[in-house]
Amino acid sequence: MDQQQHFDDWLKKRRQRKAELTVEKLYEGILNHEIPMLSSAITMIESTLDSDRVKSEALIKRCLPHTGQSIRIGITGVPGVGKSTFIECFGQLLVNAGRKVAILAIDPSSGTSGGSILGDKTRMEQLSQMKHVFIRPSAAGDTLGGVARKTRESIFLCEAAGFDTVLVETVGVGQSETLVHSMVDFFLLLMLSGAGDELQGIKRGIMEMADALVITKADGDNIKKANLARREYQNAMHLFPPKKNGWTPKALTCSSMANTNMELIWEAITSFENQTKINGHFFSDRKEQDKYWLRETLNEHILRSFYANEELLHQLRQLDNAVIEGKETSFSAAEKLYTLYIQQLSNGNI
Amino acid sequence: MDQQQHFDDWLKKRRQRKAELTVEKLYEGILNHEIPMLSSAITMIESTLDSDRVKSEALIKRCLPHTGQSIRIGITGVPGVGKSTFIECFGQLLVNAGRKVAILAIDPSSGTSGGSILGDKTRMEQLSQMKHVFIRPSAAGDTLGGVARKTRESIFLCEAAGFDTVLVETVGVGQSETLVHSMVDFFLLLMLSGAGDELQGIKRGIMEMADALVITKADGDNIKKANLARREYQNAMHLFPPKKNGWTPKALTCSSMANTNMELIWEAITSFENQTKINGHFFSDRKEQDKYWLRETLNEHILRSFYANEELLHQLRQLDNAVIEGKETSFSAAEKLYTLYIQQLSNGNI
Repeated sequence: MDQQQHFDDWLKKRRQRKAELTVEKLYEGILNHEIPMLSSAITMIESTLDSDRVKSEALIKRCLPHTGQSIRIGITGVPGVGKSTFIECFGQLLVNAGRKVAILAIDPSSGTSGGSILGDKTRMEQLSQMKHVFIRPSAAGDTLGGVARKTRESIFLCEAAGFDTVLVETVGVGQSETLVHSMVDFFLLLMLSGAGDELQGIKRGIMEMADALVITKADGDNIKKANLARREYQNAMHLFPPKKNGWTPKALTCSSMANTNMELIWEAITSFENQTKINGHFFSDRKEQDKYWLRETLNEHILRSFYANEELLHQLRQLDNAVIEGKETSFSAAEKLYTLYIQQLSNGNI
Repeated sequence: MDQQQHFDDWLKKRRQRKAELTVEKLYEGILNHEIPMLSSAITMIESTLDSDRVKSEALIKRCLPHTGQSIRIGITGVPGVGKSTFIECFGQLLVNAGRKVAILAIDPSSGTSGGSILGDKTRMEQLSQMKHVFIRPSAAGDTLGGVARKTRESIFLCEAAGFDTVLVETVGVGQSETLVHSMVDFFLLLMLSGAGDELQGIKRGIMEMADALVITKADGDNIKKANLARREYQNAMHLFPPKKNGWTPKALTCSSMANTNMELIWEAITSFENQTKINGHFFSDRKEQDKYWLRETLNEHILRSFYANEELLHQLRQLDNAVIEGKETSFSAAEKLYTLYIQQLSNGNI
């Protein structure tokens, strides 16, 4: 068998396998806690093919009644704070405590560099080999919002597949942690001690979102400095307006190297869960998040009504050329396309 | 006159002043290089009021023929790299060389913290007091994309107001520098020497966008380390695929404290401008950017057709409540709203 034949066969088998993955099969596989099925389902969610999109929506709809039972934890921090080693260490504590842990990521840089966080599983060498652990790198995507929406849908699938603890990692600068915050129950901010005042401007908005702030690398000569920073942050957090859910954010220290204080962090999270489940905010906060995602999903639907229309896409390409040739500005071209869109819609062509 | 009366009068005058700012007056003011008029116009662009939006679009349309003659420079770098002090120093060089310098910012954290870069003008103490300098902090906004679009429109207004050099600052992690890259001619990446390997994952995608990479804080004991880093980066950049516009990215060092090498950076930028204007890429790259912004502007138009419709907004609020009460999921609610949207459109109600 020559090489071409070999490749054709492989491609054929691959397509066959994919075609056999009906919504029904994926659904049953996920409910049976089959990890390969969960992986295939998330790949399908991340696909931009129209056929995959329709199947994805059907699958999520079927899975929804089996979701919601996990605690969803967002983990953020600037590059270099040690997110991967923290998750490696904290994740093992969770697994040893009998939890089933899924780890996802939202990567703001994936648009350009193709994903840089969680991409290298070897950074979580021990955790990635444990049972009851599922690690999934960040989806690539055109927009950060699109990537985030798919991550949220992946959370649902992980829950349907029996995971009771979902960690969502992101890099702690910019828009991505706002998005993570909109899909998790508990928001954990990792920080370095003595990283300097220059970082303060960035951190302020994020600090207000945090349910716990953890100073990492509190080991060796660093312990004293970390404790000092912890006290300062604890004081600073008292200055923020109290959270509606009644939770007082905690400032803690930990060391992934020395494996210290991991259980204190988990205690904070479970105590948060108990407290907000009793006062009702745990589920009402989730419903507030649903309101946000209702808008995101709606916007996606509306924009697709343009970009799935062949005639409009044809006009878009024509106007692209007009812009390149200097005959139209981006503003005038957008106006013309919008007018055409409304026409197509009112003619019932969409 | 009692306090209430005083306040009412003030409010009345303020509204009057605003009403007097017709598109015609703003346009003339901008073309006459009147900075207060430029400021008012940018405030109008940033406004979310429907009436302001209509006026903004008309104003930009009128100003467009007077735009395009500046060199647009994006400046990015991680927090702590010294962006503000660099701009303070580099901006003065430009002004002393007879350039008129406008400084804008795109701030990915402004959604939550209300803007943290360029917010504190005192950080550019000397520059901000110079003639022919216009400093404008980042607009707040719901989405990073929306903020970026308004920044791009502000560039046009600054150009119409006679500024021949526009610096656009952003924080160098995440999505925001992709957006800056989509609106500038020259992309300047500031970096620290010895910031450690942890940052590499983040920088890779951004480094590929850079037209020049400048190691900051190259002074005192730091000079040797900075030069070493400069050589390493220069070598690394040769590994990237060559740029379509024929430009070979430069690696440089500088010190804002010692005010060294600023003219080398400016030389690199002018040499880039000359070279790409001769080979035609300067303007063809701008047209490629126009294509990108055509889509952004179009999406904004399309989504507005939903959110400006009273009936649809009423239904959205109803379905918000249904989501809160657990009667709908965000997915089913979005589907219903989309169906209503298409109905409204085909009935000619939009």
